[in-house]
Amino acid sequence: MKATGIVVEYNPFHNGHLHHLNQSRIKTNSDIIIAVMSGNFLQRGEPALVDKWTRAKMAISAGVDLVIELPYAFATAQASDFAKGAIFLLDALKCEAFCFGSEEGSLEAFHHTYHLLSTKKEEYNTAISNFMKQGISYPKALNESYKVVSEDSSLPLVDLSKPNNILGYHYIEAAYRLHASIRSETIHRVVANYHDEAKPSETIASATGIRKVLFGELDLSAIQNFLPITSLDELSRWKSTFQSFGSWERFWPILRLIILRHSKERLATFAEVTEGMENAIWNAAVKKDTFQTFMEQIKSKRFTWTRIQRMLTHIYNDFTWEQLKSFDLPTYIRPLAMSKNGQAYLQSIKKDLPLPLVSRVAAYKDNDMLALDVKTANLYYLGLQSTYAQKMIGSDYRITPIIH
Amino acid sequence: MKATGIVVEYNPFHNGHLHHLNQSRIKTNSDIIIAVMSGNFLQRGEPALVDKWTRAKMAISAGVDLVIELPYAFATAQASDFAKGAIFLLDALKCEAFCFGSEEGSLEAFHHTYHLLSTKKEEYNTAISNFMKQGISYPKALNESYKVVSEDSSLPLVDLSKPNNILGYHYIEAAYRLHASIRSETIHRVVANYHDEAKPSETIASATGIRKVLFGELDLSAIQNFLPITSLDELSRWKSTFQSFGSWERFWPILRLIILRHSKERLATFAEVTEGMENAIWNAAVKKDTFQTFMEQIKSKRFTWTRIQRMLTHIYNDFTWEQLKSFDLPTYIRPLAMSKNGQAYLQSIKKDLPLPLVSRVAAYKDNDMLALDVKTANLYYLGLQSTYAQKMIGSDYRITPIIH
Repeated sequence: MKATGIVVEYNPFHNGHLHHLNQSRIKTNSDIIIAVMSGNFLQRGEPALVDKWTRAKMAISAGVDLVIELPYAFATAQASDFAKGAIFLLDALKCEAFCFGSEEGSLEAFHHTYHLLSTKKEEYNTAISNFMKQGISYPKALNESYKVVSEDSSLPLVDLSKPNNILGYHYIEAAYRLHASIRSETIHRVVANYHDEAKPSETIASATGIRKVLFGELDLSAIQNFLPITSLDELSRWKSTFQSFGSWERFWPILRLIILRHSKERLATFAEVTEGMENAIWNAAVKKDTFQTFMEQIKSKRFTWTRIQRMLTHIYNDFTWEQLKSFDLPTYIRPLAMSKNGQAYLQSIKKDLPLPLVSRVAAYKDNDMLALDVKTANLYYLGLQSTYAQKMIGSDYRITPIIH
Repeated sequence: MKATGIVVEYNPFHNGHLHHLNQSRIKTNSDIIIAVMSGNFLQRGEPALVDKWTRAKMAISAGVDLVIELPYAFATAQASDFAKGAIFLLDALKCEAFCFGSEEGSLEAFHHTYHLLSTKKEEYNTAISNFMKQGISYPKALNESYKVVSEDSSLPLVDLSKPNNILGYHYIEAAYRLHASIRSETIHRVVANYHDEAKPSETIASATGIRKVLFGELDLSAIQNFLPITSLDELSRWKSTFQSFGSWERFWPILRLIILRHSKERLATFAEVTEGMENAIWNAAVKKDTFQTFMEQIKSKRFTWTRIQRMLTHIYNDFTWEQLKSFDLPTYIRPLAMSKNGQAYLQSIKKDLPLPLVSRVAAYKDNDMLALDVKTANLYYLGLQSTYAQKMIGSDYRITPIIH
């Protein structure tokens, strides 16, 4: 059986994801699709709309064969570490290829870009730090520096101002650096831009657009054109049991409490909190009643919104710089859900896996990386602040991979 | 002006407190009554029903002239440190006497008991540690050891199995040890036992009995016989703005999150957490949905309910053994509320005070003990989980002493 890997968040699973999934299968002519998926906290530094079990079920219902959890330490990391964790897992799972969506659409440009930046590494890094000294944000500095080092090149290069291109670049980079045997593929990303609204006349909307509807006054039916019916069912079941969707706005009273519980000195020990941001975060938490006004108070040219959200994610989850530095690569493979085909595939590669396959977390109590996944899952439920969510505490010990 | 000090929690202020207040004034023939009062967390290791400002207003309305905050570090400490902090402040405030309610009612017995235990200190301590080695709780060990050392005495002694006698003993002890110039007085505590229900045919019920009504289905009018109308007004105003009263049951989802956010190793660094209780606390927090079932799971012969609650209070407030050990005596005098008489008294002693008089906390940013009062006040409001409570964050910076 031939497997292709994809890296996903499915927050929530929508028609754009379905397109990516089907195209990946066609393009790589694979029997099995394996998705490495974030747990309850995401790369943009925020709680997921619904928990990982629900998102894994959406994925399997839509045709994914195997959903593997990307450990918290990678799922909430900067793009390069996020990509490294994901590609490492897909390679460990014997995927022949992995396939990502990009604005670029052609793989050649990614390889050219990787080689250009490897060759001109020093020049590139110097440019980045010069731009940053001028006080501009890291992503902008990357972009401007990229312009500097690429201006003489006659080869087709990737436009690294586009979000999916950036992530794609990091996947390629990770595959090279890990000397992975996995082959890369990209498909052109269609239609919706990341921040677009969900427009009723179309069938593909971005996850951000869909989330806007979910948090608004509208009924779930307002987004029925944009999601498979199975996703809609899961969302509607979630809404009726949990009463709320995950978001920083929802978690704010608790995040606020956690911030104010600590001294500024202690805040600075949490992963990604740097350059005095502990002061800005603490001072704004005293004053601001909502997450939105809190963020508006602390945002700066220096840090992107996403970067600040990652700081908050780590503060919320008690994840320190020290722990961050102690993790290099994933140390286990944890399936969340699988189809019958996915189960057969896993069975076939089981004895050759380079990492332990975790179906019951209780058997791996000493694994710090896994303990972090369990802890952050619990804290996610507590942030939802609903009676049913309280009952999900410890569910990582009780739920075994869903077979569907 | 002659001032008498009392030590109070007023959770909430009821007719028993009014009796104590009036008797204290009569017995000591004083012009001014100064109450040293706990902030938002209490000596039994729990959040107060209503905040310190509201309780201070109840006190002034009922005739107290000056309410001084007992810093968190003492207000939530074991009886001996609680008493030390309170007596130290009353002495610093130039009170001529302090007056406490006791089941005993006669001061002589307290002095005899203090002298007996000082003389037989070694014998007493040996007996305590022997009893504890048999696995019985600290309070029981104290009691049994007391029986051992007092059996030959012909003098009238205090029955130290009674809660108010124990606290009274610690006041006397503190006054001796601090070489305080303050004189002690006791009055007989009337009627209600600590855990009694509020009975409608009577006019004095214990605070515990009253709290039972507040957390039940009944209307506030069910307790109108037991509280001054001014207290009832404050409770009713609180209920309509904050929507909930402070209690561990109410705070449980948040306390639970804070427990699960930490490793067991880290839990053991919080004040009073000892002898492997970090494991019991963490394990029970994973499993139990309510504070009651959580407590039932972790209670043991070794530790009283109150002692465990104090551990939880310190975990909730991020207060460590290290901080606990760094505090010896109160380092400031912070008035919360005063009558015109109280204000005049404060004016008259102002220049002779041995400690800074804090009316604006912002001016004392470097005082760790005070910062802890501000922090725990904020965390109290967040635990209430109501929209209005969110607006009270930072109120310690905004509210100046109430003059009434």
